[in-house]
Amino acid sequence: MTHASALQHAAGVYPIAPTPFLDDGSIDFASIDRLSGFYLRSGCTGITVLGQLGEAPKLDAAESLAVASRFIQAFGKTPVIVGVTAPGFAAMRTLARESMALGAAGVMIAPPNTLRTDDQIAGYYAQAAQAVGADVPFVIQDYPLTFSVQMTPAVIRRIVQDNPSCVMLKHEDWPGLEKISALRGFERDGSMRHISILCGNGGLFLDFECERGADGAMTGYAFPDMLCDVVRLQREGRRDDAHGLFDAHLPLLRYEQQPGVGLAVRKHVMQRRGLIASSAQRAPKAALTSAARAEVEYLLARLARHDARAALTPL
Amino acid sequence: MTHASALQHAAGVYPIAPTPFLDDGSIDFASIDRLSGFYLRSGCTGITVLGQLGEAPKLDAAESLAVASRFIQAFGKTPVIVGVTAPGFAAMRTLARESMALGAAGVMIAPPNTLRTDDQIAGYYAQAAQAVGADVPFVIQDYPLTFSVQMTPAVIRRIVQDNPSCVMLKHEDWPGLEKISALRGFERDGSMRHISILCGNGGLFLDFECERGADGAMTGYAFPDMLCDVVRLQREGRRDDAHGLFDAHLPLLRYEQQPGVGLAVRKHVMQRRGLIASSAQRAPKAALTSAARAEVEYLLARLARHDARAALTPL
Amino acid sequence: MTHASALQHAAGVYPIAPTPFLDDGSIDFASIDRLSGFYLRSGCTGITVLGQLGEAPKLDAAESLAVASRFIQAFGKTPVIVGVTAPGFAAMRTLARESMALGAAGVMIAPPNTLRTDDQIAGYYAQAAQAVGADVPFVIQDYPLTFSVQMTPAVIRRIVQDNPSCVMLKHEDWPGLEKISALRGFERDGSMRHISILCGNGGLFLDFECERGADGAMTGYAFPDMLCDVVRLQREGRRDDAHGLFDAHLPLLRYEQQPGVGLAVRKHVMQRRGLIASSAQRAPKAALTSAARAEVEYLLARLARHDARAALTPL
Amino acid sequence: MTHASALQHAAGVYPIAPTPFLDDGSIDFASIDRLSGFYLRSGCTGITVLGQLGEAPKLDAAESLAVASRFIQAFGKTPVIVGVTAPGFAAMRTLARESMALGAAGVMIAPPNTLRTDDQIAGYYAQAAQAVGADVPFVIQDYPLTFSVQMTPAVIRRIVQDNPSCVMLKHEDWPGLEKISALRGFERDGSMRHISILCGNGGLFLDFECERGADGAMTGYAFPDMLCDVVRLQREGRRDDAHGLFDAHLPLLRYEQQPGVGLAVRKHVMQRRGLIASSAQRAPKAALTSAARAEVEYLLARLARHDARAALTPL
Repeated sequence: MTHASALQHAAGVYPIAPTPFLDDGSIDFASIDRLSGFYLRSGCTGITVLGQLGEAPKLDAAESLAVASRFIQAFGKTPVIVGVTAPGFAAMRTLARESMALGAAGVMIAPPNTLRTDDQIAGYYAQAAQAVGADVPFVIQDYPLTFSVQMTPAVIRRIVQDNPSCVMLKHEDWPGLEKISALRGFERDGSMRHISILCGNGGLFLDFECERGADGAMTGYAFPDMLCDVVRLQREGRRDDAHGLFDAHLPLLRYEQQPGVGLAVRKHVMQRRGLIASSAQRAPKAALTSAARAEVEYLLARLARHDARAALTPL
Repeated sequence: MTHASALQHAAGVYPIAPTPFLDDGSIDFASIDRLSGFYLRSGCTGITVLGQLGEAPKLDAAESLAVASRFIQAFGKTPVIVGVTAPGFAAMRTLARESMALGAAGVMIAPPNTLRTDDQIAGYYAQAAQAVGADVPFVIQDYPLTFSVQMTPAVIRRIVQDNPSCVMLKHEDWPGLEKISALRGFERDGSMRHISILCGNGGLFLDFECERGADGAMTGYAFPDMLCDVVRLQREGRRDDAHGLFDAHLPLLRYEQQPGVGLAVRKHVMQRRGLIASSAQRAPKAALTSAARAEVEYLLARLARHDARAALTPL
Repeated sequence: MTHASALQHAAGVYPIAPTPFLDDGSIDFASIDRLSGFYLRSGCTGITVLGQLGEAPKLDAAESLAVASRFIQAFGKTPVIVGVTAPGFAAMRTLARESMALGAAGVMIAPPNTLRTDDQIAGYYAQAAQAVGADVPFVIQDYPLTFSVQMTPAVIRRIVQDNPSCVMLKHEDWPGLEKISALRGFERDGSMRHISILCGNGGLFLDFECERGADGAMTGYAFPDMLCDVVRLQREGRRDDAHGLFDAHLPLLRYEQQPGVGLAVRKHVMQRRGLIASSAQRAPKAALTSAARAEVEYLLARLARHDARAALTPL
Repeated sequence: MTHASALQHAAGVYPIAPTPFLDDGSIDFASIDRLSGFYLRSGCTGITVLGQLGEAPKLDAAESLAVASRFIQAFGKTPVIVGVTAPGFAAMRTLARESMALGAAGVMIAPPNTLRTDDQIAGYYAQAAQAVGADVPFVIQDYPLTFSVQMTPAVIRRIVQDNPSCVMLKHEDWPGLEKISALRGFERDGSMRHISILCGNGGLFLDFECERGADGAMTGYAFPDMLCDVVRLQREGRRDDAHGLFDAHLPLLRYEQQPGVGLAVRKHVMQRRGLIASSAQRAPKAALTSAARAEVEYLLARLARHDARAALTPL
């Protein structure tokens, strides 16, 4: 099966990986390896690196490639999607082609926040697809809360139909449940070919997104193992169990989903779980106050009553 | 106690009231009375009418005054805050002064979404305070997700210090926990006088907002009785009970907090609870699909296991 | 000829009228009469009142109607378009229908600055057209620099084709020459019925807009008599003369077109010309510094060498 | 004199250089040399490369450095400022330090369009200054029309006072005349140290900017020789001559200043003048229609009556 075909039919959980840094701001390659092992053991079916959460804009060109390369190595045959969003097509192309040469399964492209009209959005993706090359499978990132670009279902269909190399939607519109239903409706009425839909938005609506037709999750919640379980339970038809597990995590998941500070919470929890060595971020960054750390501890303690994975050694 | 003093020291829950319409789009005054009685019985300590959730921009001048008047009548001595946000100061002044003459306790003012710099924001509130009159207590609405205006704690302090008639903050920044801590810190260090802080954002962080120093909630969740209980439990020091109750509601509360469609969910649930006769909205509006209605029913059924108030007669 | 037909085939200059205030901020009705007389003598073929330049958002409902009424009275059978842009449809409808009852020829509607997608824009105008009533001719205001809403030619065509009561475009996209060509091309290829196109943007490209197919101008430059002359010269085929006159005014016209402060310049020049009694604006407003006043005097003096109308008595 | 001191006291014209491409999209280094020679002969006192106009975001990292290097070589001891605006600090630092090593005089930094509050803006420049290194002189680019970031004079002062390596403002606020006066006022009252102010905005207000205290121009108008003359005439106190020359160019200059299509006009005129071999741009790009080309020819022909430099061989 080709990369394109694999991604187009992808299901499960592709976590958005953070980029681990050491306290001095340098890239922590050992933590990349540890984190990758954890993702694979948790049942993740792929991974996306160099996303917003991965602090991609804070790396220079050489560092970006080094991070992508290490994850690709660690994941072996499990697909790695590389975020190649850039201010221009030349830099996008360079990173995309170098990543594919290293073994990436595809790339993810977010729209610049200046796009407004339907034509601008469709035109941008056509140019981007051409820039990276028709042989490179790509993922649309639809995240209006961060990128301020609003794509209707019809525009997404237009991108899918115009560009054979479009294989997946990272869905994080908000609200977005009806968008999933609309896109799956397009597939049923034959007006759009099938693509994989993996959902972001911190997982805040994952419980219902699967029921609406999404194939799984692509987000950075610090318990990707829970995301895997919820998606699996839904697949098995165990709806109440899926919601029960999801609801137990919702207070923490909601806390993590705060814009800006969310990444600090995630890196902190991942460090608490032993998945990365340091919660350091590069500037610009939002730090956790002691009040916020205490709130996270309280949420973890409450969660531990329902999910033993949250029972961490107290600080 | 004057209106200004009452609002400045307000605590508890001031729900944001929806404006009930009949199916033909006319205002449903009988439901205003029924809803008001429910709010008062639930322990709400005040109310805010003609907010965004109240579909204020969809009323003409005469209708706005009629809605405010009816709520004021129904609430008696319990404070009613009237949203007077308008594209210009003349219309703002007219509605503010007419509402106060009818017995309103104060007015709420949101910033126009074109404001950017600190000076523009502070200047706007100074002009607005002068426009409505120095004798009219006013509430700052700080809701960047909807209004795109970002107010730092220092700018809010400047508004409070520059305008004696500023008595309250409707806090709905996101993320916003640190903002509450910062403002209470300003009070402790003597650089800002005390104002009431009531939190919006659909209540999504109410569990921790009270702990950070907020006085309560000002939001439109369809179970304001739960909001009252959580605020009361926190005041009584029953932290775990407060979180327990809040967490049980979080899946529905989160579902309601979706921009756009959230109002449809709320009116639907309020109609299901028998609080309003119709869930009709005026255009522009987002309607609930049958899938969404089924999701709400599922959430209500799950909630009913923890909170009997959610045990509604099946549709 | 009906109002709708008159506007649909309108040509010439419809100035955007300022709302004259006395120094105390009250409406200066005597200046409305004086200004109206000047517009009519200058050859204006219609007028638009209660636009952005007309400080419409700074009037309350009763004042808006009073201003519209006075202009309508003064203009007699010459068409008056009333700006009815409002945060909601109820207020829009009220002002529209009251204005039409007083004798307005039509209304102008600008989009709220939250609209993004093509569907949102087309949907908004469909709802607005229904709100004001199918019998009320309306003008689309397409001004992305101020309203942040980007309408492609295809979206404008969709609005025109979907709404028989759409009769005119106030064109002030920037850059916008190709948009005029595209719309006229739609008319030629039969995909869009004819509407009038009058150009705003302070007149900054009027010299070429007429050549591209626009029917004239709708803007507030303080020498509307020059706008009338340029449009007339272009109609007469005297291209070089049209550009010569336009170029002589361009330094001042460009100076007036500055966002924010532009209105202060215009009211100042109109007062200098004796057209209004005071240059007062209502808050929020940008005032002219003495440096700016001196710059305007210098521009007027330079202009007077080419156009005697600018030879004003020195201050 | 150090680089920092040279830029801090810079006056005259620093054109924003386009990046010349061949028709196949590759960089045209020969045209860089030709263009550089022209700039130097025209009296330009410096140059800025890799700005927005220079299509900087369309180059990858290696290409950016190659372009900067070639201009630096061609300019010799005349200062070259390199635009290093980037989505993150790592890429910014890399380009800044490599450029300085090649002989650049300083760097220019534009703010990301997500910045809103005064603190965010000041904080961003503090982090950027630290990222590129305290030894690298930098220029603030203040261009709200494109970047949507509004910097008050007080915020600019704060950046200047907080960062000793800040040496210049590329001023292109709109309207912006009062901003120049305010900043020069800060210098006079001792609250801000002196920096150079060079004005952009296509030169649309250059006639008055010099009179308000600006040191010259930094913009990409296709007749930089005219910009040099206007600045020189103003310095010599020949005000009427300066305005006369400026006014003759204003119709074309205004035409060039259209967002998006402006670059196409400039490259076309520069090609017509023989300064670059091709007017090719990289995607995304706006092309000139034949109607637009004819309009430019007409403007050039009219201009040639006043300025012989515009008398180009007809196409």
